[in-house]
Amino acid sequence: MTPSDAPAPAPEAALDRVRSLLLQLQTDVIDAIDSVERAAGSSVAVVREHHALGERGESRPAVLTGGLQIEKAAVNFSASHGHALPPAATARRPELAGQPFTALATSLIIHPRNPWAPTTHLNLRYFSTRPASGPPTWWFGGGFDLTPSYGFVEDCRLWHEAARAAAGDDDTYVELKDWCDRYFTLPHRGETRGVGGLFFDDWIRGGWEPSFALAERVAQGFLPAYTAILARRLPMAYGERERDWQLHRRGRYVEFNLLQDRGTLYGLQSGRRVESVLASMPPLVAWTYQHTPPEDGPEAALVPEFLRPRDWLQLGARPQPEGAAATAQGS
Amino acid sequence: MTPSDAPAPAPEAALDRVRSLLLQLQTDVIDAIDSVERAAGSSVAVVREHHALGERGESRPAVLTGGLQIEKAAVNFSASHGHALPPAATARRPELAGQPFTALATSLIIHPRNPWAPTTHLNLRYFSTRPASGPPTWWFGGGFDLTPSYGFVEDCRLWHEAARAAAGDDDTYVELKDWCDRYFTLPHRGETRGVGGLFFDDWIRGGWEPSFALAERVAQGFLPAYTAILARRLPMAYGERERDWQLHRRGRYVEFNLLQDRGTLYGLQSGRRVESVLASMPPLVAWTYQHTPPEDGPEAALVPEFLRPRDWLQLGARPQPEGAAATAQGS
Repeated sequence: MTPSDAPAPAPEAALDRVRSLLLQLQTDVIDAIDSVERAAGSSVAVVREHHALGERGESRPAVLTGGLQIEKAAVNFSASHGHALPPAATARRPELAGQPFTALATSLIIHPRNPWAPTTHLNLRYFSTRPASGPPTWWFGGGFDLTPSYGFVEDCRLWHEAARAAAGDDDTYVELKDWCDRYFTLPHRGETRGVGGLFFDDWIRGGWEPSFALAERVAQGFLPAYTAILARRLPMAYGERERDWQLHRRGRYVEFNLLQDRGTLYGLQSGRRVESVLASMPPLVAWTYQHTPPEDGPEAALVPEFLRPRDWLQLGARPQPEGAAATAQGS
Repeated sequence: MTPSDAPAPAPEAALDRVRSLLLQLQTDVIDAIDSVERAAGSSVAVVREHHALGERGESRPAVLTGGLQIEKAAVNFSASHGHALPPAATARRPELAGQPFTALATSLIIHPRNPWAPTTHLNLRYFSTRPASGPPTWWFGGGFDLTPSYGFVEDCRLWHEAARAAAGDDDTYVELKDWCDRYFTLPHRGETRGVGGLFFDDWIRGGWEPSFALAERVAQGFLPAYTAILARRLPMAYGERERDWQLHRRGRYVEFNLLQDRGTLYGLQSGRRVESVLASMPPLVAWTYQHTPPEDGPEAALVPEFLRPRDWLQLGARPQPEGAAATAQGS
């Protein structure tokens, strides 16, 4: 690893390195999706767009619609330049309000068609301000998480092993895993959105190089883990029962996106392009009054056994932060 | 009409009259839905439930799931008694905070299966506080609105004629119609949710008897108008194209419910029964990136011609309140 006392690169060089990382991640994920579709004999592929926004930056949405295996995927890269940070972005750092900034982000969501295969989400973002005087300020944020309709303990373990490797050490893993459990929660349902992963924000720990290295490990750890899970689940046969369950579970995803997700709400309130903000919405969703899982199958285990914070890697002997655990369990 | 200087009935007598009105409305709507289903040879019917909540009141949800004509309907009556009005209910009347209260409401939503037939929503509610000293305080709220996937000018006119009759006079109609246009708006889409109707809240105008009479006219005007529109639209043949368009339009309904609707957000935040609060969600919904209507058909006319505030009854010569019109058009 890069030693933590390495100096930060110059602001423009830092932006170049993050931009390369985020664009490469976008390309890798698009290639992986296209490859899954081709292997299934599908004729659809991810469609890349490029919207130049002049001085305000650029947006590079890439969307798959109606694949045979991936029913919908959105893999967006965006770069935003602004003259003044919006207040919402600086609530914890009021001294930065009004400063010029650059924000880079890759954000993706993948909704497989097969109900046995989980939905996934990744976000990596970088903020950099260029004050008129004084040192530049920057931070990283992001993470990845997994939302199955059917829980498989072995998938959760694989996923969280990847999360632990991306976090770099057990302490950081436990911290970012708890952060993820707390963030991706539906309080009105008393459920987490999925089985978690990693989440971090305002991240500067150890300095620029170690923080960049964390983002890099998250970017590089995501695809091998997710494609390994897809390889297990996409071959599984399903019928109407599993599809119906999946469509109802996707309802929870919509509820999270529109009721809880600060990124979505901020995007809509700040007048960002609606189609980009809502590109993550599931393609087909169902709500039924008092919908309950069949009693005799794996559906009934999802909420009680998977959709609450769980120690997937059996690090249970480790003391966890008191406040974090209590909040995460949404008591 | 009742003269506006008639005294208010005693609080318990007032509650009895509102309760009878709201329960009768629930029964009438359930009967109408069941009758539409029976006429289609359907074997499903509205299922009534009764949840006694002891001192806190009662909830009477009634839900149709998977009808041949009405894909989903929820027609809920609730009575709530509390020791102290929550702050959210008294933002405009801080002097009432902490007072014991009774709230009665009938709320309904009907999602037809046929895409040519519009979704509709009605709400009628009554708040009554019983302060330890001083006169009792009460107010009415509610209205009805219509959300088509395909616009028909003649349906909009019929609907708004019913709204005008329910409002009682042209001035009140224009006022409550504008209120409805402003409330049922999706600012991120630059669209109204539907073609409107009536909306009112904190309503005490003219005293108790005239306010009750407004609620009564709304309750009694709703069904004849909606069933007349259903009778026109349910016989129309449809195929995959119309169904697909409807499922995407229902996405807007979900966006409104979860992003904008104060009733839904308040219900979820205040810990009400989630299944009741979300009973109004459409049964099946689709989101597609950059979904656009086919250019050669009636779909393309919906947003520009129907989903913005419009003077359906050609009362255009009338001056409308400046602020109201500007807000309603969401500039």
